[in-house]
Amino acid sequence: MLQIKPEDIEKKSFEILTSQMDKDRLKFYTDDELLVVKRTIHTTADFDYQYNVIFQNNAIETLKHCIQSDAMIFTDTNMALSGINKRILTGKFSITPRCLIAEPDTIEYAKKNNTTRATASVDLAYQIRDEKQDLNKGKKIPIVFAVGNAPTALIRIHELLDKYTPDFIIAAPVGFVNVIEAKELIKQSNIPAIICDGNKGGSNVCAAIINAVLLQMV
Amino acid sequence: MLQIKPEDIEKKSFEILTSQMDKDRLKFYTDDELLVVKRTIHTTADFDYQYNVIFQNNAIETLKHCIQSDAMIFTDTNMALSGINKRILTGKFSITPRCLIAEPDTIEYAKKNNTTRATASVDLAYQIRDEKQDLNKGKKIPIVFAVGNAPTALIRIHELLDKYTPDFIIAAPVGFVNVIEAKELIKQSNIPAIICDGNKGGSNVCAAIINAVLLQMV
Repeated sequence: MLQIKPEDIEKKSFEILTSQMDKDRLKFYTDDELLVVKRTIHTTADFDYQYNVIFQNNAIETLKHCIQSDAMIFTDTNMALSGINKRILTGKFSITPRCLIAEPDTIEYAKKNNTTRATASVDLAYQIRDEKQDLNKGKKIPIVFAVGNAPTALIRIHELLDKYTPDFIIAAPVGFVNVIEAKELIKQSNIPAIICDGNKGGSNVCAAIINAVLLQMV
Repeated sequence: MLQIKPEDIEKKSFEILTSQMDKDRLKFYTDDELLVVKRTIHTTADFDYQYNVIFQNNAIETLKHCIQSDAMIFTDTNMALSGINKRILTGKFSITPRCLIAEPDTIEYAKKNNTTRATASVDLAYQIRDEKQDLNKGKKIPIVFAVGNAPTALIRIHELLDKYTPDFIIAAPVGFVNVIEAKELIKQSNIPAIICDGNKGGSNVCAAIINAVLLQMV
């Protein structure tokens, strides 16, 4: 057993995982991007993420700008919500991220429209943002979608692009049905995004991506 | 895009992942075990789990028995807690799982004893269980630890084995520092457990394991 102080575990962990990464990939990413990639590996011990994570259209700078501009952040699962570093996001930036998936309004909306709750959550997120913007005398409030589970959330974001362009997307659903296709839609849109390509991703990965960016802002 | 009803997505997903699994591993596990393994893959899209998941000492039957016996279930992260199927665990079995990691008592106890909050959570979990048992006129209340993050939780469980034997352990911390070693301690103990061998695991995997067993009980 390695004798190590609790506060040193994360540092040591990153040292070990870095030493096990593909040297070419260490050079492939910018420093800020690499911190995100490393945190996805830290969260999963899955080195596939060094090949899977795509930073689209000035991704990290855009996400930082959204956070600095008091964006609303919507996750598609309560697990992702639970994993986000609220000490930084809420404590430092006064942003309270939300997940609508299990709220009564969402369940009712999904039933009424015969759709998934994840789809309903996207519609309602835009409504909530718009209402807040109206109260805010029309001052723009950026909207960020952090999707770690539901491809239907990404599909709905894509369907609504004529009406709404989200300011940032984390596209990290995991799975085997429509996951790759849904991520493809986000790639084609060229909206600023961090995308976990392929089948992999998850609520934990989604939270890790946000946290890796937040940790660069303290 | 595959046109599929929301309620059929999970079934289709399991069909696809099963078709991609190693045929030898499909034969290696019992039917109940295989449902657990498949759900870890469903949660991660990481097929390593078909080789990593160890069922120790009559694991599934023991965990089911714990749940039927109103066990107390303690997770080491709020993410794992958030991912557990409460509709079944609380709705059907009246078990409210708990996570002590961020509670003020835990933070104080960890500071006082110069230890990790995960270590403190184990000590306090036993205290809480014992107090409930006393109120219960000494009737035994099983205790289940669901560990998806902190190797120090497993190490503490092992240190206390002279005094306390947990009824079941999910040993699925992820990472690079003392993770393999901590899982080794649980293997040596031969306590009924589901162990994700190696570096992999996580809060999502930990929740997926519990949920896979819960879904067998409805």
